[in-house]
Formats: sequence, structure tokens, C-alpha cells
Amino acid sequence: MATTSPLSKNPYRGTRDFFPKDKRLQNYLFSVMKKTAESFAYEPYDGPLLEEVDLYKAKSGEELINEQIYSFVDRGERNVAIRPEMTPTLARMVAQVHREISKPIRWYSIPNLMRYEKPQRGRLREHWQFNCDIFGAPTHLGEIEILNVASSLLKNFGANETHFEILLNDRRVVDGLFKKILQFDETTSYKLYKIIDKAKKVSSEALDKMVSEIILDPHKKSTFMEYLQLNSFNGLFTLLEKNKLQDELTIMKEFLSKLENSEIMKVIVYDPTIVRGLDYYTGLVFEIFDKHPDNRRALCGGGAYANLLQIFKEDPITGMGFGLGDVTLTDFLTTHKLLPDFTKIDLNVIVSYQTDDAYNLAMNLSSRLRQFGLKVETLLGINNFKKVFTMAEKKDVTFVVFIGEDEIKSNQVQIKNLKTKEQKNISINDFEMMKGFLC
Amino acid sequence: MATTSPLSKNPYRGTRDFFPKDKRLQNYLFSVMKKTAESFAYEPYDGPLLEEVDLYKAKSGEELINEQIYSFVDRGERNVAIRPEMTPTLARMVAQVHREISKPIRWYSIPNLMRYEKPQRGRLREHWQFNCDIFGAPTHLGEIEILNVASSLLKNFGANETHFEILLNDRRVVDGLFKKILQFDETTSYKLYKIIDKAKKVSSEALDKMVSEIILDPHKKSTFMEYLQLNSFNGLFTLLEKNKLQDELTIMKEFLSKLENSEIMKVIVYDPTIVRGLDYYTGLVFEIFDKHPDNRRALCGGGAYANLLQIFKEDPITGMGFGLGDVTLTDFLTTHKLLPDFTKIDLNVIVSYQTDDAYNLAMNLSSRLRQFGLKVETLLGINNFKKVFTMAEKKDVTFVVFIGEDEIKSNQVQIKNLKTKEQKNISINDFEMMKGFLC
Repeated sequence: MATTSPLSKNPYRGTRDFFPKDKRLQNYLFSVMKKTAESFAYEPYDGPLLEEVDLYKAKSGEELINEQIYSFVDRGERNVAIRPEMTPTLARMVAQVHREISKPIRWYSIPNLMRYEKPQRGRLREHWQFNCDIFGAPTHLGEIEILNVASSLLKNFGANETHFEILLNDRRVVDGLFKKILQFDETTSYKLYKIIDKAKKVSSEALDKMVSEIILDPHKKSTFMEYLQLNSFNGLFTLLEKNKLQDELTIMKEFLSKLENSEIMKVIVYDPTIVRGLDYYTGLVFEIFDKHPDNRRALCGGGAYANLLQIFKEDPITGMGFGLGDVTLTDFLTTHKLLPDFTKIDLNVIVSYQTDDAYNLAMNLSSRLRQFGLKVETLLGINNFKKVFTMAEKKDVTFVVFIGEDEIKSNQVQIKNLKTKEQKNISINDFEMMKGFLC
Repeated sequence: MATTSPLSKNPYRGTRDFFPKDKRLQNYLFSVMKKTAESFAYEPYDGPLLEEVDLYKAKSGEELINEQIYSFVDRGERNVAIRPEMTPTLARMVAQVHREISKPIRWYSIPNLMRYEKPQRGRLREHWQFNCDIFGAPTHLGEIEILNVASSLLKNFGANETHFEILLNDRRVVDGLFKKILQFDETTSYKLYKIIDKAKKVSSEALDKMVSEIILDPHKKSTFMEYLQLNSFNGLFTLLEKNKLQDELTIMKEFLSKLENSEIMKVIVYDPTIVRGLDYYTGLVFEIFDKHPDNRRALCGGGAYANLLQIFKEDPITGMGFGLGDVTLTDFLTTHKLLPDFTKIDLNVIVSYQTDDAYNLAMNLSSRLRQFGLKVETLLGINNFKKVFTMAEKKDVTFVVFIGEDEIKSNQVQIKNLKTKEQKNISINDFEMMKGFLC
């Protein structure tokens, strides 16, 4: 156990220690995620912490593999990585079973993930991510359900349309525009996707300059800029009509018709800059944004994909899903004051004793109370009344049990309800009466 | 997304994919762990997946660091490891806060851990481990509470004294015997601890041979062998008395006196071969064993330690804790048929529609039912009655909702309870009546 230099007490850079108040908060986030997913009939799954690097190479963008992944060679010469995201694992698992199980497949998970990032607000190296995906659903209906799950999640935390909005686009629309109208090749499209991803983060001059470097034809550039300035579904429809993108128009109109009279339309906004360009999406794409000016950032991103199983040489299957991280979610809920207080332990009863002989009695009594479903702290060692009251108050506990010399003599315990000030002496073996008083 | 060779669909060696039935089972294990820990006033904590290797070097045995740890150098030249156990992280966290928070500190966690092991029954490379620890409690009382938590956990899974036993010893007793009576030096003691750890796994001849190689003095060897053959507290007391180990005798007698009349004495057995020799324990040590002949193995191990914070140059603090892994626990519960069935989804209602127009209605209705706390699957696409019934039966769902052309005309939905065969037509906006029927 000896060591020469003092060890650091801090967690590894970009990771967190969860002390009880932090972990209770996280457990609350997880419980609302679980409840929401299961209310939509999503089933839980999980996968390994490590995957072979080939899986990520096959699926992910280069940036992730080269710079952001925690990878190493194991003792068996396997090139492995700590999962930076859940989707490749999900694809691998769905590839194993999709032929045998009935569709749609609705799955959710809350894995811990690691990315080698520069730690900053909203971004840490280790985070937990809620993942919800549906496979094999009719395209628009699966897309809408996923939007509903994401939106319901935030509502189940107490958020509403004043707090967040869903910015939405469709990769088929952007691809149609790029390929059919602007006739860009793949390289140009790829570069423009990167520019679109940055569009909101740079000045209009900088944006113009970046675009001018890629699109030399002024007419094409003007169409592209016109696209980038869209801010409504109606604007999009006009652009699609003008450019005779009939298939794309049909897709978007059908999608919207399915949302008529739905609650979720209140939070959906068309946004041409949402493309999630370096990812594997092939249909609807969306991000949920915090509307608060102090925390104007994406909470959640997702979309539809058709080719996720291709890396396993499996037939295409429609898929749609999203991921939402615990760090950005906590920032969102904190910003809008939607988090309960987690500083205090959730405890029902403190069992105390005032004489050494009473320890065994206190221990056995506590066991019985736990069988009633109560959360019971048995004080270890003798504590006088005053000290017990102070502790109970600090912990916000309703009931305290005292076992002193007098109680032992009379074969009773004294139980006090600190909220109502009611107090009872109950025979040491009358667990039914105790239950009645305590539960 | 293109790849030249087909990717493996299997998880990384020694890890598991958790499909929904597996994950539901694991969630059940976790929920009983959480419930048990909180019923004893233990608070949740968690730490990072990665720690600096120095932390493990300072704390753990050599074997773990050299052969079993997943370690690598990160992009910032830090030597880091995926946590193989939780205790070093726990020590680091307690070292941060122990001066400011009231004692005893009662904490639990259920982290995923990785060790580079040869996968075999009960041992995988990735597992989850329930960890419970108490710091700053009066020695025996903390020890007994930890034994109670571990035992209650198994009881809360439905196990009883016919299924498991707690094999128990005290490092102070073994150390007293080694140092005061047998006068072994540290090297000899260390070797003998290793032999004791193996004592039950080898033949008596092999054991005799191993001991003879270390202890040359026949009198000392005979005392050591006499110790190894103990099988009761009374036998231990006799040995301690004979060798005038008065302090050790007092410790053990006081410990036992605190357990008088307690339920837990039914499952406690004295076992001289339990020493957990290569670890950091300084007091009580124990392992919980499955009593079933087909699964005769340790489920859980733990003990008392006084020097856990020493690596951080902090003052000693009494500590006691245990770890219990999900793999061995599942084997135990499976062996004794204590696991519920997790093959089916937990679902309350299926909402179906029989005409395309009804999709929006079905979606909105489902949202309302979810607000009642119901788990609702909205079928995506038109399904006839027969198909809906088949699905409901397969998923063991009680309620199905039908919205067909007739229903839309009459502004009603039809709800059927498949268990009671009761059926109701309810106005499409009468959510209170729906709630009454469904909840």
C-alpha cells in the first residue's frame, strides 16, 4: 500500500465523481428515461464496454476514429475501443436477431460512453447517453414515434414548448437538391455538408466565403444560399416546387399530414442547417435545442437510417433513433430550474438505542421494519435523545425510534413522528402496530 | 460504411450482449440491490470508468496490475486503466470528503468493471459489481451491519439459509497466530496466506507438501495445520486460549456477543481458510458461498480495512465493505430457481387502428393513456382484429384498443380486457372513463 508520491484525489480529466447527491440526480434522470421509453413499449438492451475497433471503422466518420476514440491493443493482440457511442453496438446486436423477432423492434439503452474530447460546458470525456431506436417500422410512423419519445422525455421532466424546440430536416430533401438540381459530385456534397453543419456558428460573411470556395457557379450558389435561409415548411415547399423536386415534396407533405392535430407540432421547426452530415442518416434528421438564451445548444440528435446493417452484409431495414446525453440534459434542466433537490437522503426511520444492551434489539427491530419496505438507519452506538433529534432533523427523517433502559424494562419501544409530534410506546413484539404507525 | 471483410456480429470475448430479456433480468438484479442498500440507509455513488494506473498500483496486489488490468496510455500521455474494481475509486472519493461529512459514511454503487481474464463459468471480462461500504463506524457494529446487508440482499431475492452460508474469519486472529505464536516474518506470512487461499482447492497431501516447504519447524507446522482444520467458533476459542492469544479471543467473543439472538447467526460459519490474503483487509473477512453442490462457489467477498486512505496520506478510518458480481449472482439465483421470467415485455395496452385516417387519433389517444402511467404500444399501420389479438396474446397484454371506421363515425373507441373478456365502447374524449377501465 506504500507509495512514494502523493496520489491525486481528483477524477481522471473530463470524468466525474458522483457523490450521493450527484448520483441521486443521475438516478432520477435514468428513471425518467426508463419510464418514458417503457411507456412507448421500448425494451431495454445493453452491450459491452469494449468493441473491436473495426466495428467503428466500418460505421463511423473518420474524425471519430482518428482523434476521439479511446482505443488500444489488448493482451490478445485485438484492437479494441471503449464505446464512444452505442449505435454500432446496437447495429451489431440487431444484425444478430432481426430475422427472428417481430417488427418493429423498439429498444432503448443508457450506456456510459467515452470520447477523447477537450472538456468544456456540455462536453465531457465520459458521459451517459439515452438511446432509443425503432427498426422495421413504416418510415414516417417510426420517425414520428421517435420524435414523440424524445419530446415526451423532456415533458416528463416538466419541460414544455417554452423550453425546447425540435429543429428538423430530411436528408432526402438535401440529397435531392444537391444531386438532382445542383448536380454536385460526392466530394462537393461532403464538403457542403460540413459547411451546413457550421452555418449557424459562423458570421454570414464567413459562411459566404466558405460557400464561394466550393460552389463556383453563381446560379448554383444562389440556390444553395436560398436553401440555407429557409425557416419554415412553407418556404421549403416553395423551394421544392420551384425546383420540381416532386418526390421530396411528397415525402415532406406526407410527413406533415401525419402530424396534423398532434401536440408535437407545437415544438417542431423546419431548419435547413440540421443535416447531421458526417453521420449515417438517410431520412429525417433532427436536433432538440434549448430555447434559453444562456444555454442555446443541442440536447439531443437523431434521425432515420436505412443502411445500418449493411456493414454486416444484412438486408436494409428502416431504422430511426436518437441519443441524448446526461451532461447536456442536466444543463438544460438546471437552466430551467426543473431539477428537484437531491441533497438529502431518502430515509424513513432512524432507530436509536440509549443503552449498550439494546444493540441486538435495535438491529432485529430494524430488520423487521425493513421488511415493511421502510428505509431504516440503525444508529451504531449509544446516542442520547438530543443527538438523535439533531440527526433526524438534518436528514429530514419523519420517524425516530428510541430504545432506552426504561423501554427495555417495560418491553417497549418509543416511536416519535417528528412532523406531527405524535409519540407512541409500542410493545417490542407488536410489529403490526408499528407498521400501522410508520407506514 | 463500406468494408472489405464481413464484420463479426459477436461481442468482444468475455463480454455480453444484453438483449431485452437479459437486460430486464439485470435491471431486476440492480433494483433489488438498490432497494436493499437503501433500506439500510446506504447512499448511491459512482465514479469514472477510467482511473490513472498509479491509483491501482498504490492499492492493489501485483497480480491485478500486471496481468489482469486493461491499461493503456491516453493521447495526453497519461497511463490509465479501465476500473477492474471499485474500491480504489471509492477510497479516492472518500479521501476527498471524509473530513466534512458525518460518520458513518454508508455508500453503495453498481459499476461495470473489466478484468482481463480467461472467460469461464462465473468469470467474465466485463461484469457489474454491487459494492457496499461503511466508513467510520464502531468496528464490530459496522462489520455486523455489512454482513446484514449482504445477507439481506440474498434474502430479498428469495434465498434463505438452505441456499447460502457466510464463511467468516478475522485477519487479526490469523495475524496474531502468525506473528505472536509462530513468529513468521512478513515473507513467510505472505506465502502462507497464498497457501491458505488455495487450501480448499487442493488435496490434503498437496496441502501438506506446500506447507512443509514453507514451515520447517515441526511444532509450528502442527500448530498451523491445527489452525487450518478448525471448523467452529468453539474450536477457534480453544486454539486461541491454548496459545494465550487473549486479545484475539476478546475480539472474537465480543463480535459473537453482538450477534446473539440475531437472524444472521443462522448463516454464519467460522472458516479458517477465508483470509482474502492478497487484499487490504485488516479485520473481519468473509465470503458468501452457494450451498448447492452444483454451484459451490463464492458469490460475494468482503471485509474490514483500516488503511484504505493511507495512499492519500489521510488518517486511518475504519472501513468495511463487500462486492458481489452480477455473473455469480445470476448463477446462484438460476441454480436455486429464484429468478422470475423476463422473456416478456411489461406492457399494459396495445392501441390499434383499422383505417388509415385513424392514425393521428391513435397517436393522440396513446399519449393520453401514457399520462396515466400506462405502458402503451401504438401499432404503426393498419392491423385487423385477428392480428391484434394474436400480438396481444403473444405479449401477454391485458388491454387492446380498436379504432375502426365504425368507431370513428360514432366518435368512440372499443377497448377490450383480454383477461376478463369485458369490452367497452368509450367516447373518444372520455379519458376519465378510459382511465377507470384501464387502471
